[in-house]
Amino acid sequence: MDGSILKDPSNVGLSTTVHGWVKSVRLHKQIAFVEVADGSVSKGIQVVIETPELAQDLSTGCSIKIVGKVVKSMGKKQDVEIHAESVDCIGAANPKEYPLQKKRHSLEYLREIGHLRLRSNIIGSVLRLRDFAERGFSRFFADNEFLRVHTPILTSNDCEGGGETFNATTEKATLEEAENSFFGRKVNLTVSGQLHAEVAASAFPRVYTFGPVFRAEPSLTGRHLAEFWMLEAECAFITSLSQLMDVIEESIKSTTRYIQDMADADLALFSKWVYPELEKRLSSITTQKAYPRITYTEAIEILQKATPREPFEFAPKWGSGLQSEHEKYLSSEHFESPVFVTDYPIEVKPFYMLANPDGRTVACMDLLVPGPCELAGGSLREHSHDKLLARITDLGMEAESLDWYLDLRKFGTTPHGGFGIGFDRYIQMLTGLESIRDIIPFPRYYGRCQY
Amino acid sequence: MDGSILKDPSNVGLSTTVHGWVKSVRLHKQIAFVEVADGSVSKGIQVVIETPELAQDLSTGCSIKIVGKVVKSMGKKQDVEIHAESVDCIGAANPKEYPLQKKRHSLEYLREIGHLRLRSNIIGSVLRLRDFAERGFSRFFADNEFLRVHTPILTSNDCEGGGETFNATTEKATLEEAENSFFGRKVNLTVSGQLHAEVAASAFPRVYTFGPVFRAEPSLTGRHLAEFWMLEAECAFITSLSQLMDVIEESIKSTTRYIQDMADADLALFSKWVYPELEKRLSSITTQKAYPRITYTEAIEILQKATPREPFEFAPKWGSGLQSEHEKYLSSEHFESPVFVTDYPIEVKPFYMLANPDGRTVACMDLLVPGPCELAGGSLREHSHDKLLARITDLGMEAESLDWYLDLRKFGTTPHGGFGIGFDRYIQMLTGLESIRDIIPFPRYYGRCQY
Repeated sequence: MDGSILKDPSNVGLSTTVHGWVKSVRLHKQIAFVEVADGSVSKGIQVVIETPELAQDLSTGCSIKIVGKVVKSMGKKQDVEIHAESVDCIGAANPKEYPLQKKRHSLEYLREIGHLRLRSNIIGSVLRLRDFAERGFSRFFADNEFLRVHTPILTSNDCEGGGETFNATTEKATLEEAENSFFGRKVNLTVSGQLHAEVAASAFPRVYTFGPVFRAEPSLTGRHLAEFWMLEAECAFITSLSQLMDVIEESIKSTTRYIQDMADADLALFSKWVYPELEKRLSSITTQKAYPRITYTEAIEILQKATPREPFEFAPKWGSGLQSEHEKYLSSEHFESPVFVTDYPIEVKPFYMLANPDGRTVACMDLLVPGPCELAGGSLREHSHDKLLARITDLGMEAESLDWYLDLRKFGTTPHGGFGIGFDRYIQMLTGLESIRDIIPFPRYYGRCQY
Repeated sequence: MDGSILKDPSNVGLSTTVHGWVKSVRLHKQIAFVEVADGSVSKGIQVVIETPELAQDLSTGCSIKIVGKVVKSMGKKQDVEIHAESVDCIGAANPKEYPLQKKRHSLEYLREIGHLRLRSNIIGSVLRLRDFAERGFSRFFADNEFLRVHTPILTSNDCEGGGETFNATTEKATLEEAENSFFGRKVNLTVSGQLHAEVAASAFPRVYTFGPVFRAEPSLTGRHLAEFWMLEAECAFITSLSQLMDVIEESIKSTTRYIQDMADADLALFSKWVYPELEKRLSSITTQKAYPRITYTEAIEILQKATPREPFEFAPKWGSGLQSEHEKYLSSEHFESPVFVTDYPIEVKPFYMLANPDGRTVACMDLLVPGPCELAGGSLREHSHDKLLARITDLGMEAESLDWYLDLRKFGTTPHGGFGIGFDRYIQMLTGLESIRDIIPFPRYYGRCQY
């Protein structure tokens, strides 16, 4: 199949065919101008029709085939345009019924027509950015010898516990049968690929996984999705947190630069319409030599010093987790840049994290960024079988269901660690969009699972 | 982080560090030979230890750090080896307990130790091939201007019906609450991303999606997984099946050649140990100028002609679907090559397929290949709103739940079509492995969902 002329319309004089959807029609007596988009880039192309009768049936949203010639444009808004020789309306879009007219629609309205909103400029750009972001990350991790592993969605393990999981059931008469009859046990949708990635990292020194994870969190804000995308990586034979932070930082810088190269027009759309400070934000991500790295203890000190000025709802206090307002202050106000916060208190973190020699903190980090705040998190993992078993027992967890995870420490264990990057949050950071529901093509959240 | 020396050990004289897992130890009086693998390639590297005491604690499965020098090998089995200066056993693997000894284990046995089997030569190669295959397909589809779209796992639509789906439920007291309380409706795990890809292809002319899909099929054979990976693509503005077949054929050829370039040693392992005819099979895939394309009607004729000789369990008969034995005969016996079969009877295919002018068949195709038989399938889609609605009504389906799908035909519809490639089956074809349970890192099937 041929490539889209819209991706590179510089070839003046070329005879070409354009397939796409009409964005707008301006009908004059002698001439008609039709803007046609085909999703390959953010901008449509202007089609000039010198026999306006040919454009009479056209309206916003209809699909179209134009045969014509690429010509230097006399207009100021574009360098080139298509002079149409033939115009073929393939699929009409009755202007009285078509819900996506030329005018600007609110993001809330667009969510109500989720099966058509992918045609809007803004969601179109989001989807292209997602594609380039995935390509950017894939390239980075492949270049750095990470093996991509397909960790499962269905799992008999719920990783961090917490209970806010979806179960996978089959059509049966009773709840118990529905839950147990297919696999012979209760099975849930994964909340994280980490433990499976650790299995892989006991055979391959560097692995990553990329895909959706699930939380049945009954949240009504625009901050949470029931199905969202995570990139999770795991590295064997590493002994320091800084190695992991280097990988996160480099992967984000490299991917963001790649997107700037490949999709600058899409980014510009968000600077213009959504978040005017976007360029400054992107520059803090890509051009900064090294993201600041502070300990949780230092973070608490910074927050406490700021407290007289900052009206925090929760007083920052050593021993409690950081609240969103604290994370936001650190990344958006104090540093105005991505910042790593390391070595949180052991009590607020999951069982598998490696304890620091102080006995009070664990070798973990969160990456906080302007915008979505928590973008990534990771840790070294406890790799001693006996220490991990002791921790599991201390916490009153069932060691039996984790026997396979403990086995990894029994046979050829290695000091290792890993992290997860919230992919949708990364796109949120790149676009300045407030609601994560506008970041993903088919959002699923409390009370909503359309299509 | 540095790259693995095992990927390119040609740099004789280089001082290097090897991290990996011990495959075997040969302890002599004056010298020890240790084979170390690190998952980056199929072959381990030989480490020569001139102070055998240093190797005394080593055994198969333990993790190890070697500092040494790359040296030209005197042995016949390898070009280079490492002469160790220091040997550090990081994690032991008690030989009395470690279940993955040097000897060859059966695939069935390996499945029983699923959390460790990724270290075996054969599953290690499978995982590398999966990674390269994903890269190969991603590259092909990106180069051909397909946008990668993240279609959802959770969906209120079950695509082809059939009922063998998993539902996503939350922890509640009753089945009805568990099924309905989170989303306010019943939600299942996707059986295909096609309908969502069609939504995207009404905004972008070419899209694809790659990820797991789910079938709650209570099958006890090695042919079916409950969670398996599909690549699904959809193209707008296409009017002929041959355009789709070209894309499938080129994507498979291009990806297979890429894998041959990148992972020939992994393929060789399967030629040697699993399927001796593999090279011949791969050559029928990559070097053949064009895969044969026959209609279903022609296929039935071929099968009927063969019937006197072939002991088919089911007599081939126009109007019934092709049985596995028929597909197998066509691809493995008659053509000994991939073969497209097109234009099946309308009765045996789903509602969304475009009817041919004959009224009896639909514009669809299956790609049959030696090995797993059905590798891909696709069709043109009915793009007329009224005809699709009539078909839905004829079949007694609920039009209301498909209003969004019908809307795509109401507003700017285009002639379009798409296909799905079974990713695990593709890997099955490349390896000759019989059971699909050995193709995927964490297999889920009837009665089994470990970890």
